[in-house]
Amino acid sequence: MLYDVVIIGQGPAGLSAAIYGARYNLKTLVLGSILAGNMGEAWKVENYPGFEKISGLELADKMKKQAEKLGAEIKNEEIVKIKKEKGKRKNDNQKFIIITRNNKTYQSRSLILASGTQHRKLNVKGEEKFHGKGVAYCATCDGAFFKNKKVVVVGGGDSAIKSVLLLSKYASKVYLLVRGDKLSGEPQNRKTISGNPKIEIIYNISVSEILGDNKVASILLSSGKKLETDGIFIEIGAVPASALTSELKVKTDNKGFIVVDTYGKTSAPFIYAAGDITNTYSSFKQILIAASQGAVAAHSAYEDLTKKP
Amino acid sequence: MLYDVVIIGQGPAGLSAAIYGARYNLKTLVLGSILAGNMGEAWKVENYPGFEKISGLELADKMKKQAEKLGAEIKNEEIVKIKKEKGKRKNDNQKFIIITRNNKTYQSRSLILASGTQHRKLNVKGEEKFHGKGVAYCATCDGAFFKNKKVVVVGGGDSAIKSVLLLSKYASKVYLLVRGDKLSGEPQNRKTISGNPKIEIIYNISVSEILGDNKVASILLSSGKKLETDGIFIEIGAVPASALTSELKVKTDNKGFIVVDTYGKTSAPFIYAAGDITNTYSSFKQILIAASQGAVAAHSAYEDLTKKP
Repeated sequence: MLYDVVIIGQGPAGLSAAIYGARYNLKTLVLGSILAGNMGEAWKVENYPGFEKISGLELADKMKKQAEKLGAEIKNEEIVKIKKEKGKRKNDNQKFIIITRNNKTYQSRSLILASGTQHRKLNVKGEEKFHGKGVAYCATCDGAFFKNKKVVVVGGGDSAIKSVLLLSKYASKVYLLVRGDKLSGEPQNRKTISGNPKIEIIYNISVSEILGDNKVASILLSSGKKLETDGIFIEIGAVPASALTSELKVKTDNKGFIVVDTYGKTSAPFIYAAGDITNTYSSFKQILIAASQGAVAAHSAYEDLTKKP
Repeated sequence: MLYDVVIIGQGPAGLSAAIYGARYNLKTLVLGSILAGNMGEAWKVENYPGFEKISGLELADKMKKQAEKLGAEIKNEEIVKIKKEKGKRKNDNQKFIIITRNNKTYQSRSLILASGTQHRKLNVKGEEKFHGKGVAYCATCDGAFFKNKKVVVVGGGDSAIKSVLLLSKYASKVYLLVRGDKLSGEPQNRKTISGNPKIEIIYNISVSEILGDNKVASILLSSGKKLETDGIFIEIGAVPASALTSELKVKTDNKGFIVVDTYGKTSAPFIYAAGDITNTYSSFKQILIAASQGAVAAHSAYEDLTKKP
């Protein structure tokens, strides 16, 4: 089975690319291991035009159903390898071979890379040992486990602030540890956590080590002080999930984000990229923008695939 | 009253810019004479991610309410003049003065131009004389007037095809006149009109004159033949609605579209542009993309306005 386009990633960029790919009558397949991607962690989206308030998961689900209704296939498959295969005969174009964890193989005439980003790690002692035992990266996913407990959030941007706000609904106390001397992010978000007696913000501080026996008990701060806590949420940004794509030799910037032009084209023919994995709008990652980039990438794929040779 | 940002245009670009402007706590005002802009003419939108099916007007209404709820003001005002005023004293920044048809004046620290496009005209004899008397530019708006009548559509792209499909639900006969030898646009759209006995496509033809007494009776074709018809829908593309902005001296391309960079910045400081009025994605005008460009422009305005001098 040869697809016209295989889209890697089930976030807003991937699902929107699927909607547009299907509208262009391209044989379209979406692969990825997590529906919604990072968007699934947003429990309240208020800035996607058309919805006053919706959860990221609910919005992703709507996009998924829409793409499927238009004819796109969407499969939960973890990809382990992508390779390019040259045509053996004349007029036999190159194609891409995608191999999944379940040893399934898919073939495609083009690729749209939309696998987004992964959480950046603190890289301190104890972080890996206690991952899932008090160390967390997603307040939406794990916040409810900290009812009436003390938690720490590390970070200073929008995602840290949103996590603090959410955690303050469960926890008895939320510390926000900020490396610099002020918070960044949307003013509207910053306002939501000011004046809340449960929340304490500590500036100019970082985490040296995470301590405990079989679960997190405290953290050692850069000031030398120990802070007792039941959990620590690490919200310090994201790194592109572009490990899989290194074999495809698409150009990336010095942080690993895929370099694309205005039309979602990468440095390699018939490979496009969209959403958080790209180097555009790097300081302004939005569901709306990722979706728009997905549409643009699908349009470029359509144009290139239907061009007369 | 000095606004942080005044947005010209109530289409998806303008309304999305308003949502984002308000989220950034900017004092935000949207001005424009038509809610929804050209999006209002789309009676069925199936490719805006999140909605399987929605009318353009309904989607615009949702965006409008969302923007207002977040704190943006939206006023139905036709703008007649926009001018730049230099600060009189030191540290007194330039501002923009917007004057409306009702002689109201608004002042703003920045502008987002999002007034979209207007219908391109055929520029043939009879077109202006019979405008509203059989000559039309919007099937969604005027299609229902042609119940059981003969109509002609001129054009070869998506909007022409969508108009043909809609008109075929009312009219007894729909002719589609195509200048070239094939249709362009989405294959999914092209399929919708094939095999319909009410629809007849004529290729390699153009309109020389529109004829009638007090309303359209027939059209003279480039072949020399006359075609009897009750109406003619002209769907041959769009020109940017940038007449108002000429005084602002923002750079435009040779078709009049406003030149912007990836971040929605025009050639003039504190003036941004978004949506169909811009020179990006000129062959791929989409509600989703316009909305994304609106968000990006609002973000750029926010960054420039809050930057320390």
